[in-house]
Amino acid sequence: MNKRVVLKQRPKGVPQKEDFEVNFEPLHLNLKQGEILVKVEWISADPTQLVWISGMKSYMPPIKLEETVRALGVGIIINSHSPGYKVGTYVSGLLGWQEYCKIHVSKVEKIPTAVKPSLYLGIFGMTGLTAYVSIKLLGKVKKKQVVVISTAAGAVGSVAIQIAKAQGCKVIGITGSDEKVQWLKDLGIYGVINYKTDNVASVLRNMCPEGVDMYLDNVGGEILDAVLMNAKKGSRMILCGAIQSYGLKKPQPVYMYPLVISKSIKMKGFIISDYQDKYEEAIHYLSKLHKKGELVYKEDIVEGLENAYQALKKLSTGGNQGKMLIRVLHEAPKL
Amino acid sequence: MNKRVVLKQRPKGVPQKEDFEVNFEPLHLNLKQGEILVKVEWISADPTQLVWISGMKSYMPPIKLEETVRALGVGIIINSHSPGYKVGTYVSGLLGWQEYCKIHVSKVEKIPTAVKPSLYLGIFGMTGLTAYVSIKLLGKVKKKQVVVISTAAGAVGSVAIQIAKAQGCKVIGITGSDEKVQWLKDLGIYGVINYKTDNVASVLRNMCPEGVDMYLDNVGGEILDAVLMNAKKGSRMILCGAIQSYGLKKPQPVYMYPLVISKSIKMKGFIISDYQDKYEEAIHYLSKLHKKGELVYKEDIVEGLENAYQALKKLSTGGNQGKMLIRVLHEAPKL
Repeated sequence: MNKRVVLKQRPKGVPQKEDFEVNFEPLHLNLKQGEILVKVEWISADPTQLVWISGMKSYMPPIKLEETVRALGVGIIINSHSPGYKVGTYVSGLLGWQEYCKIHVSKVEKIPTAVKPSLYLGIFGMTGLTAYVSIKLLGKVKKKQVVVISTAAGAVGSVAIQIAKAQGCKVIGITGSDEKVQWLKDLGIYGVINYKTDNVASVLRNMCPEGVDMYLDNVGGEILDAVLMNAKKGSRMILCGAIQSYGLKKPQPVYMYPLVISKSIKMKGFIISDYQDKYEEAIHYLSKLHKKGELVYKEDIVEGLENAYQALKKLSTGGNQGKMLIRVLHEAPKL
Repeated sequence: MNKRVVLKQRPKGVPQKEDFEVNFEPLHLNLKQGEILVKVEWISADPTQLVWISGMKSYMPPIKLEETVRALGVGIIINSHSPGYKVGTYVSGLLGWQEYCKIHVSKVEKIPTAVKPSLYLGIFGMTGLTAYVSIKLLGKVKKKQVVVISTAAGAVGSVAIQIAKAQGCKVIGITGSDEKVQWLKDLGIYGVINYKTDNVASVLRNMCPEGVDMYLDNVGGEILDAVLMNAKKGSRMILCGAIQSYGLKKPQPVYMYPLVISKSIKMKGFIISDYQDKYEEAIHYLSKLHKKGELVYKEDIVEGLENAYQALKKLSTGGNQGKMLIRVLHEAPKL
């Protein structure tokens, strides 16, 4: 039997335990040509999943009710019907919230042996790639420019901050707790704003009276407005997420978009699956940073599939620090 | 004496007569080196003036109270202290809401003699340049793409429509009266939506189920939302104006910006003064269209400085059709 978690109902706002159900399904061990059986070890919790479970139309179809929750994960091959994919190899793909995943090899990537499996979901995986694309490719930051990053203590945010810092920028992070403020200060960035206690617009004005050159937005709503009010002419707003709005019937409003006109601002949204061809370039860059000690990371781990919902809950409320992961605790398979 | 119109108070919403005052100031006829005296003939009414009179911070300072209303105009030189600028030459510049303007030649442009003076404020002036920059340079439209244009019967909108049509696009205009719908249909565009009677989002979905490739936004607010809901992946939203929001304490909200992420949309705002170097290229293109009979235009004329406020009122409420102009009726100068 395969233990898995399915979506029972669409969350109203922040995901709760009762929106999900842990159950078992028979696990047929016979594999078709090209299939592998993967024992899932780590599951990534990503803001995009909040969109998938909300039912909102997006770049991927919503997760249906009674369906195993779709999620990126890494695991080890325990049975294979594909010559190039040997038992014992680590792979990554949309393995889902489950102990075992039978999947075609065309839908997985092998993890380079030098990479620690969980990091493949973090700094050396989609998270790192997202930060790299945001800051380097789309944000096109230059030395001494002012770069502002929201959800700065999150997985993408904390990598983005360190890339911008390595590029010689004046980096300002926006986050939501004193603990996270402290961690970000320890990373040595120019300024940190706690949006729960500070007036973002006015603190930002004091921190960078010269204006913001680039903003990596993971939240939207009033924080985006506060940055627009402090944006420099010709600045870039890279929209990566809108976590404040996921799961809401109506997203948080943005009022200050007329400033996009008067300040000749470029706003660019993106989805990371369009930038897969930049993966090698990104990981090469990030590995170099990591070796120099300029890329530190944190993992925030939830233990067990029963508690998987907590990972999404934390993401949704900004409770996490660093990369949010679920560790799958395997019970003895009930065959 | 010089008859002029000054700003008395900042309008609350739509500009009204009492927000302005017609008065006279002494006109000193002596000119300094490099100055000319211009008899103002035509004044352009532009949405950007709604920003200037609102007091909002923008790319230009607000118009102060008791100050002559700043406006682009054309007029004829009647006295000159600059050898290159002969009496009888037509010039354009920020001449303001007044009968006569004493101005340094560095602040005016000579109007090519082939161009009818009022058209220099319209299709062969900033209006034409704005439409050209929006559709060709920033919008980068290609044959068969779906292009949507708001304030479609306005000065910029009606030129933009005809450029997009000439580029082989499927053009859909959004406007606010049956009369304007009819005029736009006469221009032979693919579809017209009356936002006052139609549900923009659903009519748009029917008109172009394949999605919108480019949108020229002059309004913002819920119409921008409706287009975002129907935007294609990788589409461009060119933000040129937000007329719904000018003069409001808080602009109209935009809710659908999370779609900018999931659809990888690029939103670009611009101010036309950054594209002055494209003027010749634009006018060359527009002249060719005009000669082929593919660029028709309308002028909506208010007579006399006393009625100048009506031009802004019409712009603000969408009452105009085509280029909004004020014709200056000169009284015999009281010397």
